[in-house]
Amino acid sequence: MLRNVLYLALGTIVLSGCISIHTTEYASESKEHQVLRHVVMFKFKDGTSSQQTREIEDAFRALPGKIDAICDFEWGTDVSVENRHAGFTHCFLVTFRSEADRAEYIPHPDHKEFGKILGPHLDKVLVVDYWAAK
Amino acid sequence: MLRNVLYLALGTIVLSGCISIHTTEYASESKEHQVLRHVVMFKFKDGTSSQQTREIEDAFRALPGKIDAICDFEWGTDVSVENRHAGFTHCFLVTFRSEADRAEYIPHPDHKEFGKILGPHLDKVLVVDYWAAK
Repeated sequence: MLRNVLYLALGTIVLSGCISIHTTEYASESKEHQVLRHVVMFKFKDGTSSQQTREIEDAFRALPGKIDAICDFEWGTDVSVENRHAGFTHCFLVTFRSEADRAEYIPHPDHKEFGKILGPHLDKVLVVDYWAAK
Repeated sequence: MLRNVLYLALGTIVLSGCISIHTTEYASESKEHQVLRHVVMFKFKDGTSSQQTREIEDAFRALPGKIDAICDFEWGTDVSVENRHAGFTHCFLVTFRSEADRAEYIPHPDHKEFGKILGPHLDKVLVVDYWAAK
């Protein structure tokens, strides 16, 4: 019986470690593990085709696979209902673990390459970064 | 030995359930469990004191404890380095599980009450919602 309890406890400890590593990537749960969020919004120029829009989305979505400094990434298109979106149609939430990782991302060649795809179609961009607190 | 393996497996199954429930609250990891993000940015009027700013922050931060429709919440002040923040100083990321939860939140009395605290000091607001995809 004691041995069974010990095995259960061992399983608990091992998996608690997994939970901790896992959740740190997605959200700030404690001051010690705050993440740096990088919120990027785009409004494209009139005349940007749906194919061009898709190419920009795909190019941004490819960055987490190319730039290790990105520890989490999500995105979506505006579906707000309060008419306060100021024309922005796209939101990308890029997450870093540190300012050093952000400093690696901004001038990264693959990020610059993405900028070349985006640039010709960009009407407005908004970028706000914050340390995620509860 | 077989019994020990079974106990370990049991621990794994129980804790996997916990991981699954836990991470769903924080990020969209699959199409089946996408979350609806509600990104809210503020710029306060010139002359808004640091105490008034703190009262607004605290009032917003209190909403997840008052409105069940909010399934996750985080916030922070702008620390971006690219000068694309358009004057916005505050970003709040409110997460819902569904459009129905958002529809409950928007006219909720506690949300309206928050609006009364915010309103006199608000210069600009931006709201973009998106279904979080990878």
